[in-house]
Amino acid sequence: MNAPASAIEQLQLGLPELDWITDPNRIQRLSQDFSWFSPVLTRQLEGKVADAVVRPRTEEQIRQVVAACARLKLPLTLRGSGTGNYGQTTPLAGGVVLDMTSFNELLWLRPGLARAQAGIRLNEIEKAAQAEGQELRCMPSTYRSATLGGLFGGGFGGVGSINYGPLAAPGNVVGLKAMTIEPEPQIIELRGAEAMRMHHLWGTNGLVLELEIGLAPAQPWLETLAVFDDFDAALAFADQLARAPGLDKREVAFLASPVPDYLTQLAESLPKGCHAVLSLVAEAGEEALAELVSAHGGRVSYRRTAAEVSKSHKTLMEYTWNHTTLHALRVDKSLTYLQTTFTPGEYVRQITELSRRYAGEVFMHAEFLRNMEGQTNCSALQIVRFTTEERLQQIIDEHRAYGVRINNPHTFIVEDGKAGGDLPEDVLAMKARFDPLGLLNPGKLRGWPVGAAS
Amino acid sequence: MNAPASAIEQLQLGLPELDWITDPNRIQRLSQDFSWFSPVLTRQLEGKVADAVVRPRTEEQIRQVVAACARLKLPLTLRGSGTGNYGQTTPLAGGVVLDMTSFNELLWLRPGLARAQAGIRLNEIEKAAQAEGQELRCMPSTYRSATLGGLFGGGFGGVGSINYGPLAAPGNVVGLKAMTIEPEPQIIELRGAEAMRMHHLWGTNGLVLELEIGLAPAQPWLETLAVFDDFDAALAFADQLARAPGLDKREVAFLASPVPDYLTQLAESLPKGCHAVLSLVAEAGEEALAELVSAHGGRVSYRRTAAEVSKSHKTLMEYTWNHTTLHALRVDKSLTYLQTTFTPGEYVRQITELSRRYAGEVFMHAEFLRNMEGQTNCSALQIVRFTTEERLQQIIDEHRAYGVRINNPHTFIVEDGKAGGDLPEDVLAMKARFDPLGLLNPGKLRGWPVGAAS
Repeated sequence: MNAPASAIEQLQLGLPELDWITDPNRIQRLSQDFSWFSPVLTRQLEGKVADAVVRPRTEEQIRQVVAACARLKLPLTLRGSGTGNYGQTTPLAGGVVLDMTSFNELLWLRPGLARAQAGIRLNEIEKAAQAEGQELRCMPSTYRSATLGGLFGGGFGGVGSINYGPLAAPGNVVGLKAMTIEPEPQIIELRGAEAMRMHHLWGTNGLVLELEIGLAPAQPWLETLAVFDDFDAALAFADQLARAPGLDKREVAFLASPVPDYLTQLAESLPKGCHAVLSLVAEAGEEALAELVSAHGGRVSYRRTAAEVSKSHKTLMEYTWNHTTLHALRVDKSLTYLQTTFTPGEYVRQITELSRRYAGEVFMHAEFLRNMEGQTNCSALQIVRFTTEERLQQIIDEHRAYGVRINNPHTFIVEDGKAGGDLPEDVLAMKARFDPLGLLNPGKLRGWPVGAAS
Repeated sequence: MNAPASAIEQLQLGLPELDWITDPNRIQRLSQDFSWFSPVLTRQLEGKVADAVVRPRTEEQIRQVVAACARLKLPLTLRGSGTGNYGQTTPLAGGVVLDMTSFNELLWLRPGLARAQAGIRLNEIEKAAQAEGQELRCMPSTYRSATLGGLFGGGFGGVGSINYGPLAAPGNVVGLKAMTIEPEPQIIELRGAEAMRMHHLWGTNGLVLELEIGLAPAQPWLETLAVFDDFDAALAFADQLARAPGLDKREVAFLASPVPDYLTQLAESLPKGCHAVLSLVAEAGEEALAELVSAHGGRVSYRRTAAEVSKSHKTLMEYTWNHTTLHALRVDKSLTYLQTTFTPGEYVRQITELSRRYAGEVFMHAEFLRNMEGQTNCSALQIVRFTTEERLQQIIDEHRAYGVRINNPHTFIVEDGKAGGDLPEDVLAMKARFDPLGLLNPGKLRGWPVGAAS
């Protein structure tokens, strides 16, 4: 007589037609994301692995998996392409990883809007939008592999946020379709503010099937690096460029020395020890851009037109946001990073003072963006020379005491990261409505511990 | 024996092939603009009229007029369509009005840029740009008749400045070609910051022949009016809409009661006594817009899609900026107006306090825009119930004492208006270079009085 089948075995036996990943190495890999940027998360998430990974192709297959997991009380963790950095896709209590990448249809494109299944890669939307004179409003530097659902569940914004602000700003995500985690799953359309209660919750309070997002009119972007000998001049240039209302742009990043030295693939354009500003400015603005660079004593060391970028498939966008960190980590494994939000109107002083205070240990990389209120602001992804977890925590505490916001990327608990504390009532109500059994990656929400469900 | 010909007669006899306007009524009309919005200017400019008006068609014809005027020491006043409000086109010392409206060729359109002769109507550029998926970045409400050169010489910005800021922001005007006023006129191309030293000088420091301007990607704009019972709610809505980074928009205007009552052609959509917000938001943003209106207790009372606007040739843009004043003056000739620039971050309080302080006398109409530093701000064109010039001056003085900037529209002197004082050295150097004989509308620059030239 055979031993009684485990819940996982029952699940797989009951749904034999699905695309199950069974190879332990692949299961291991699909249980991880880019949380290895953090030595803290690397330690904390060691050994956390799914019991099974499934890759559904249709809404009906998703429904079957969800219904069965709900009946069997099996934890369910949602995964896009695993480009997140906070262990978003790592199951803390085992169970099933639902890999959404085969659920990837672009449903429609209209002027200013697109709707797609959650597992679509952002680059697929970008390419289809470009063909119609449109482009994504904000996207992570990982857009080639990152999914739309992953961006919504664990992302903030990125390239384009200098215009459109964070993904959370009204109009960027218009609506979504989500599934409840129950034996009889319900499928529900949420619009506007209600839809956003599922945003940046790491897939813990609902399974998003489809997303409807705003698009931007496409522009031909000139990609440039401007280099400076002087920190203050480079920062002042970046700030003025970011704020200039007459210069259309998609991206402005300030890379203080020694950050440019880590971008070895761009070494020809980044003299050792320089401070650099990476930007995407509309080609029509090149003359005004050049005038601004000169006025700040810099020079343009790299210049690619939109046509050249398109032909070469090499884009500076893949040197921005957390890609900068990735390039640095490839050069020096002992590095890690911080995430900091500065204050509108004060960020130049804050960046300058903090860069001086931590010279040799914390290296400034600031991204310009508009915040939810439409103000120009900076968000930094500083590169940190890691020594000990205690020292890292001390740096974080000191930054907070100084008066800037740290979105701690060294925790896997939702409330301890960017959420910055207890979740609002309306978000918890969404959790109760869409995951009444508490099966979505139990342990991820501190306020909703394993076994807390009804 | 005939009497010796006057300088004007010599000019006209010497250039018989040009298009001279000789009818005294037409000369009278072409010596005026919309300065009748101001009872002060109406009084001050009474009787100021050109001796002749000429309408050149080519650069060569312009050169001939300029060379002859320089030889004959005849004053020269530049004119577009006369939609300005500060007596820009009124010759203070007689002489020749150079009507530029027949010098109106669109030279080229490229992605993000256009170049045209100064006398082109803005609507001609807009139509040509729209055909290629582009549009003007900022334009006055008078765009149907106003010229490009007139906007550059006497305009500030307008519809679209909520994105691109004032026309003066780098990138909006890329370059220009200008002619010196000399017996042997020189033609000189100016680029970037140097070109802007000829901006908003009412055509007193150079004759602009061609302008090269930035364009925006076109979007389908939904035109709406949202109406509110409550002043604070309407203003808060307008402010949040203006700042929302995820809502693409071309125009946001706040019309406090009783201003909407003066817009009689929109009366069906503007209940008596309402406060209204007029906006052009990208059609893709309609759902988010509606959510925002509801959240502030308002309702959308007028809604036209881009297709409907295009078909009807009726656009809300012609109810914004100084068109609002025009509509009010049509209803009540005793009204006049103010121009006020508020302070970023404080404008909601300033608008509220000033509206209460002058209830019944000064009626708030505020336009949202980005300033040169990229901050969201408000500029008001308040409608004023006029009593005396002394009271009007008192209101202006009180506003200045309160801490907001008044761009006095009741003066015809450049330095006393928006320039706000003595002109910078580089602007005066431009005057000396391009108008060494001081012939461009003498009397308009306080710092360059009639007869001050070499």
